[in-house]
Amino acid sequence: MATSDIDLLIHLMSKLPGFGPRSARRATLHLIKNREQLLKPLAAAMASASQSVQQCGTCGNLDTVDPCIICTDGQRDPTIICVVEEVADLWALERTAAFKGRYHILGGVLSPLDGIGPEDLSISGLISRAGREAISEVILATSATVDGKTTAHYITDRLAECGVTVTALAHGIPVGGELDYLDDGTLSAALKERRQS
Amino acid sequence: MATSDIDLLIHLMSKLPGFGPRSARRATLHLIKNREQLLKPLAAAMASASQSVQQCGTCGNLDTVDPCIICTDGQRDPTIICVVEEVADLWALERTAAFKGRYHILGGVLSPLDGIGPEDLSISGLISRAGREAISEVILATSATVDGKTTAHYITDRLAECGVTVTALAHGIPVGGELDYLDDGTLSAALKERRQS
Repeated sequence: MATSDIDLLIHLMSKLPGFGPRSARRATLHLIKNREQLLKPLAAAMASASQSVQQCGTCGNLDTVDPCIICTDGQRDPTIICVVEEVADLWALERTAAFKGRYHILGGVLSPLDGIGPEDLSISGLISRAGREAISEVILATSATVDGKTTAHYITDRLAECGVTVTALAHGIPVGGELDYLDDGTLSAALKERRQS
Repeated sequence: MATSDIDLLIHLMSKLPGFGPRSARRATLHLIKNREQLLKPLAAAMASASQSVQQCGTCGNLDTVDPCIICTDGQRDPTIICVVEEVADLWALERTAAFKGRYHILGGVLSPLDGIGPEDLSISGLISRAGREAISEVILATSATVDGKTTAHYITDRLAECGVTVTALAHGIPVGGELDYLDDGTLSAALKERRQS
């Protein structure tokens, strides 16, 4: 029978998203078999990240410095803020390299059913940034879900008094997507928002 | 953009079995969000396991002590050895609590195509245990694959000179399995190895 050190490792690994008891056992064995190449570096990286990673006081991004490197990057346009739900969304947008402004991370979406109201998200922080900084445009990049849409509407209302342009990501056909497989909502939106080519 | 500490963590997490870049990013964010409950304990558990876990010199099991607690457990029958391919198989058998003997871990199966011969597995260790210890039975619990079967045959031949009884796991219908969904090989084996009820 495996002993406490291994059992504890399996138990903790099974709490990772996408992992269950079986995959945690498999991953633990993989780690132990690759002790020098994977287990030790991963232990060190986790210890280091648990010490160094902090939330940016301005935008809410995760970084080893506060303010984060995006907020202090002089190459980026400080007048445009892209509002996203989570850090993962920021990473997704950064991978496209299509946006060169700054970000604001809400930390979730409004969800009355789950008891998540405006005070649980970083919305007042956004409003004060829009009022304080010289912001020309706020791009709302929340999810195209009911909660994401509700959150975007709420933020649009709140930003009305700040006098900034509020925009949202376009709806339409995903690049590489086939019409046949698209849902009706996306297809209607793509038709409604058609443009001259 | 994420900084080096986070990037390194994502890079290492993506090397876990079952993880790719996307799931590694998701798991990394989950770890950072649950710093006290998950990230720090996991870093500590990994560091501890990387120090303490070693291979049992007798059976090849992974444990914090050598010989492992199974090999030194006086409650277990020392005259029966169950031969398995990997530590994961030992864990699977231990979860059933149906076997109270000892184990021998081969570390894989014979696979000429992959260049894995008898000297790459812990087969000579098994032969010397069968000759040295007072062993009455060796249970071959290798996989029911071609390579697993080949390995079992090879070990049976090698053990012939030791005068121990060599047995193998039974083939048949999985408990809870429906006949309709079984493959032909399993069904034939179950029919051939039928027993009086």
